[in-house]
Amino acid sequence: MPQTIGVIGGGQLARMMIPPSVNLGLGLHVLAETEGMSAQLAATDVGDYRDAATVLAFAPTVDAITFDHEHVPQPILRELVARGYQVHPGPDALLYAQDKILMREKLTELGLPVPDWAKVANQDDLQTFLDAHNGKGVLKTARGGYDGKGVRIISDAAEAADWFAALAEDANGGHLLVEELVDFRRELAQLIARRPSGQSAAWPVVETVQKNGVCAEVLAPAPGSEGRIAEVAADIAQRVADGLGVTGVLAVELFETSDDRILINELAMRPHNSGHWTIEGSVTSQFEQHLRAVADLPLGSAALRSPHTVMINVLGGPAEGVMEDLYPEVFAQYPEAKVHSYSKLPRPGRKIGHVTVTGEHIDDVAYQARAAASLFDR
Amino acid sequence: MPQTIGVIGGGQLARMMIPPSVNLGLGLHVLAETEGMSAQLAATDVGDYRDAATVLAFAPTVDAITFDHEHVPQPILRELVARGYQVHPGPDALLYAQDKILMREKLTELGLPVPDWAKVANQDDLQTFLDAHNGKGVLKTARGGYDGKGVRIISDAAEAADWFAALAEDANGGHLLVEELVDFRRELAQLIARRPSGQSAAWPVVETVQKNGVCAEVLAPAPGSEGRIAEVAADIAQRVADGLGVTGVLAVELFETSDDRILINELAMRPHNSGHWTIEGSVTSQFEQHLRAVADLPLGSAALRSPHTVMINVLGGPAEGVMEDLYPEVFAQYPEAKVHSYSKLPRPGRKIGHVTVTGEHIDDVAYQARAAASLFDR
Repeated sequence: MPQTIGVIGGGQLARMMIPPSVNLGLGLHVLAETEGMSAQLAATDVGDYRDAATVLAFAPTVDAITFDHEHVPQPILRELVARGYQVHPGPDALLYAQDKILMREKLTELGLPVPDWAKVANQDDLQTFLDAHNGKGVLKTARGGYDGKGVRIISDAAEAADWFAALAEDANGGHLLVEELVDFRRELAQLIARRPSGQSAAWPVVETVQKNGVCAEVLAPAPGSEGRIAEVAADIAQRVADGLGVTGVLAVELFETSDDRILINELAMRPHNSGHWTIEGSVTSQFEQHLRAVADLPLGSAALRSPHTVMINVLGGPAEGVMEDLYPEVFAQYPEAKVHSYSKLPRPGRKIGHVTVTGEHIDDVAYQARAAASLFDR
Repeated sequence: MPQTIGVIGGGQLARMMIPPSVNLGLGLHVLAETEGMSAQLAATDVGDYRDAATVLAFAPTVDAITFDHEHVPQPILRELVARGYQVHPGPDALLYAQDKILMREKLTELGLPVPDWAKVANQDDLQTFLDAHNGKGVLKTARGGYDGKGVRIISDAAEAADWFAALAEDANGGHLLVEELVDFRRELAQLIARRPSGQSAAWPVVETVQKNGVCAEVLAPAPGSEGRIAEVAADIAQRVADGLGVTGVLAVELFETSDDRILINELAMRPHNSGHWTIEGSVTSQFEQHLRAVADLPLGSAALRSPHTVMINVLGGPAEGVMEDLYPEVFAQYPEAKVHSYSKLPRPGRKIGHVTVTGEHIDDVAYQARAAASLFDR
């Protein structure tokens, strides 16, 4: 019998697992938050992933459980494992994607390169850190942040008053994370997939460009990364994956600093926006590789299919109608562009799709991808 | 609103339209013959395509109708058109894929290169043709043949006695088609897609290798076809598509004869086994292109993504269990292989999946694809 993979969460990451599941003949069951989500076609259950009964009813319908996001509460994850279900990544690994303070502690313990950081309980502690770092820092809530949310660049501890007040009201109490404001040349991302039995495969490191804290474009491989940068990035990702016991796809967001260090920014334990280029750009896409890893099947080749691949997010979309309304114009002008729609309604800043172009010449590839994507945003 | 494409027939061709429909955000509704077919995931209706009421109930749920096969009866197709539904390819074109005698007549009228042929009503007519062609011929029923069925190589008209007897019992009467037994060096296939508004795009011509009358492997592009052969094949397909008014993907099966002619063997007006390589081997797969064409959207680039692509069918499959049971072994040995399962139960000779490999060196690519596919067949 083919295995059936269960995905908790019905967003575009779950959606993009549908094509490889169809190709491979693996079953795919999605527990979606609501009706009509991006992964609707594979949605077999609809319910709240924070409700243990909902998740425990979904689990027996599949052979292995994975995720569209990292937000399933630890007690539910641990109950799944206790009942003998395959969960990838497991709760011990996911913890580090859910809590940025635990992540920084663990990476530091493993001797991995991270920005200077501190766990702060009050404004005084925070000001002490800022004073030691040129008066500046990046303040982060330990939990709940993504796409720039829960992150604030500050130059005075007083700017954190509201977050400390919120922490004080929270019965669990807690801390904030402050990190040095890294002077970086650019941001990179290193993706790797790892099976429960340990085999792993890394894609070439890519450059990511953010706009307003959201990933806007990805250049694969990162220009000029051949050689040492690629080795360092792959080595970091391998040590994170092994050290944290990650299964499935792991994305390690990196800073390439102005003084030539590679530092770990964030982790994601699932297919990631910085890997959408792999659908066309790699022999095995991150979505197929994630299914293989979660099913504990041998991983596919992560080799490049073209010298250059550029992926541009569609952020927002047309002022009226939907992305698909613009296909006549986009397709006519850019026959090389691979257009991906997440079947989401346009809304300012919302990720509703992406465009990928592959080819020999980075400038031409990037131009076509940007120009095609920009036709959707107006 | 995104368009929804309706596919009549739930086989693997409909199944392989699912990934591009997900990528593009186009709706896909499949009218499947039974529950549990290959395209089950997209099946919105189940019923008999030969039943007008079933098809007419399906039609209003979609924006354009296309097919997994060519067997929908003409009266139903014509009723759909009469009621204003978009049908691609339309009945006037499909007729030539449904009836081989009409196809030969039309191609001859268009001045296209075909083997010598005759429409024969009895053994005497047939013997006359055989006598004029070295005593040999290929006898075909006008309708209902595929994958070698309804085709018989004969050297005596008496060998056709049972087929003539069957025709005599059929109230519609009718004829058989006899063609010269072409002395060919190899078989080729030329695929082209054409929009209702006339734009067309052709993939490079490929070589197909049949075993027991069934397509077993496809080499893309056809070795040594650069230059004149590619031009001739593309020109033939363009003239067939325009001359017959085909919309969607058209496959033209060709003979490259031992005396260096290119002759038309068969036509198929839908994605075709000889085009499965395009999923990985071309910028736009035949399945995405078919959806674009049927939706009358501008076509994508049909350029190669690799110098060589080889596709091998999985014919039969394992003696016990299903294809997916062999993934641990196949994936471990062939990480470059792209494996496609149609979620069909193995049966001797049955097409249950295929394997594609792309790369720089034809011998290596062909070896990997054949070796990986062969692991499934035992």
